[in-house]
Amino acid sequence: MSSRRYAILGTGALGGFYGARLQKAGLDVHFLLHRDYDWVRHSGLVVESPEGNFSLPQVNAYADVQAMPPCDVVVVALKTTQNHLLPQLLPPLLHEHNWVLVLQNGLGIEPEVAKIVGGDRVMGGLCFICSNKVGPGHIRHLDYSAITLGDYAPNYHPCGITERMQQVKQDFEQANIPIQLSEDLLLARWQKLVWNIPFNGLSVVLDATTTEMMASPPIRTLATELMQEVVAGAKACHKALPDDAIAKMLDNTAKMKPYKTSMKLDYEAGNPLEIEAIFGNPLRLATQAGASLPRMTLLYQQLQFLESRKIVLSVKC
Amino acid sequence: MSSRRYAILGTGALGGFYGARLQKAGLDVHFLLHRDYDWVRHSGLVVESPEGNFSLPQVNAYADVQAMPPCDVVVVALKTTQNHLLPQLLPPLLHEHNWVLVLQNGLGIEPEVAKIVGGDRVMGGLCFICSNKVGPGHIRHLDYSAITLGDYAPNYHPCGITERMQQVKQDFEQANIPIQLSEDLLLARWQKLVWNIPFNGLSVVLDATTTEMMASPPIRTLATELMQEVVAGAKACHKALPDDAIAKMLDNTAKMKPYKTSMKLDYEAGNPLEIEAIFGNPLRLATQAGASLPRMTLLYQQLQFLESRKIVLSVKC
Repeated sequence: MSSRRYAILGTGALGGFYGARLQKAGLDVHFLLHRDYDWVRHSGLVVESPEGNFSLPQVNAYADVQAMPPCDVVVVALKTTQNHLLPQLLPPLLHEHNWVLVLQNGLGIEPEVAKIVGGDRVMGGLCFICSNKVGPGHIRHLDYSAITLGDYAPNYHPCGITERMQQVKQDFEQANIPIQLSEDLLLARWQKLVWNIPFNGLSVVLDATTTEMMASPPIRTLATELMQEVVAGAKACHKALPDDAIAKMLDNTAKMKPYKTSMKLDYEAGNPLEIEAIFGNPLRLATQAGASLPRMTLLYQQLQFLESRKIVLSVKC
Repeated sequence: MSSRRYAILGTGALGGFYGARLQKAGLDVHFLLHRDYDWVRHSGLVVESPEGNFSLPQVNAYADVQAMPPCDVVVVALKTTQNHLLPQLLPPLLHEHNWVLVLQNGLGIEPEVAKIVGGDRVMGGLCFICSNKVGPGHIRHLDYSAITLGDYAPNYHPCGITERMQQVKQDFEQANIPIQLSEDLLLARWQKLVWNIPFNGLSVVLDATTTEMMASPPIRTLATELMQEVVAGAKACHKALPDDAIAKMLDNTAKMKPYKTSMKLDYEAGNPLEIEAIFGNPLRLATQAGASLPRMTLLYQQLQFLESRKIVLSVKC
């Protein structure tokens, strides 16, 4: 049984699910909350899941990082749109040998976190999970839960499989979370963008589910072309993705149930969109490396427009 | 006073306005109607316009081209989405020396009309007009009315300024319609697409007015990039558009009142969109000529998706 202690920053669809599963598996978990702090402190967490419903009537809940005990692994499970909070949240949580695990979409976040906590403390993870927060402390897990884990070194220099990756893997597997280890975190992040860029972006712009998009021949073509651009962007950054992965990914998407992407859910909920992590950062990285990515750029421009208008609308209301 | 007789196919926002003005100026005009036939036959046409309101209590209205008298100029003022009707509508209207004037958006229509009526009978016109049909036989003209007129020869071979162009110009100017003559119809059609492609397309996809789009820096950039692609597409077809026209066009657009494009109005009204004339035909022409137009293609794909979904929705209702 691991004695590692976990801090979870952001107890929502993602952090609430993984943190609760870790605690249920016997690990010592400490949750940072904001809006739901009072509720969760008194009532704990409830997780509905096809893998088994459970509740944790008592959890270690905090409204302030200053009150949290020293933790071995600090899991950043906020949306990237809240990362402006990290310079305040992370420094009080640093202890001699602990690490920060960034469980977020897109790329370019680890370098920002490294600026705050140092380049040798950061790991990254990509979550393949369908999960929603449906009420205070109430998580509805729908499908999947796997995480691809990679270690971080400055400039995303590949780290191979490190000892601490193995340790995190052991803890999460104890909680029945499938963990895949990646020797190259940036490669893994680009790989996930092959799906996220076309389907997150187009689902918002076209107000569409994956099923509707896959049923449309022009959108299947466009999704393929966007995926090819992501592969080209990765290649410009010296990350070789298998070109034949695209056809397989489209096939899998066509077989999925009608699915609203995370960006579409955020858009419908009026939450900020993770445009910079998923579009802006990859575009800047790849175009600086010489790639020309007109379709990704166009989608980025359309999303910026929709996001800025949403902000104007909500200020008016 | 001209003795030329005009047939107007499509007595809507465009054909209703121009036809009424020609009749008011003393020309002999014959209107083909469909839905509004009974109304207009009994009550005539009403035109509201900042240039002067007027009504024509009696017009020559027809529900069937077979009943129309021989006309010197047959004006096609239908939406391009109704052009599948032309093989039925045009042949009965052909007489020894008459012409067909295509007043439609986009490009690639004249070759289709030439297949029906012969390559030496076709002229084309591009309308710069804001006008709506607000009720049966009731046209609300808002702004502008100019037409750029060009003669057609097979494969859009430039015709220069022909005698019959001068004659049509004379008739329309008699009705106070500003007419510009173009020596090269295909060049003129590409020129108009420089505006129509970005703003018609994006207004539908982003649900936005010209003012909202011009207020957004990413969309101004995108509109510029789309315009550059249209210029590149024209160039591949050996039509040289002035590159500096783009900045001027953007400036003018920024100064316009909030304006819904014709495609946006069609979308809101549930009418078919002129996607093929404005996007499909230019794209096919330019890519066959070797141009690579990823942004125009993406917008075309998005519009096809929105259009196909709209059709599914209306079949369901």
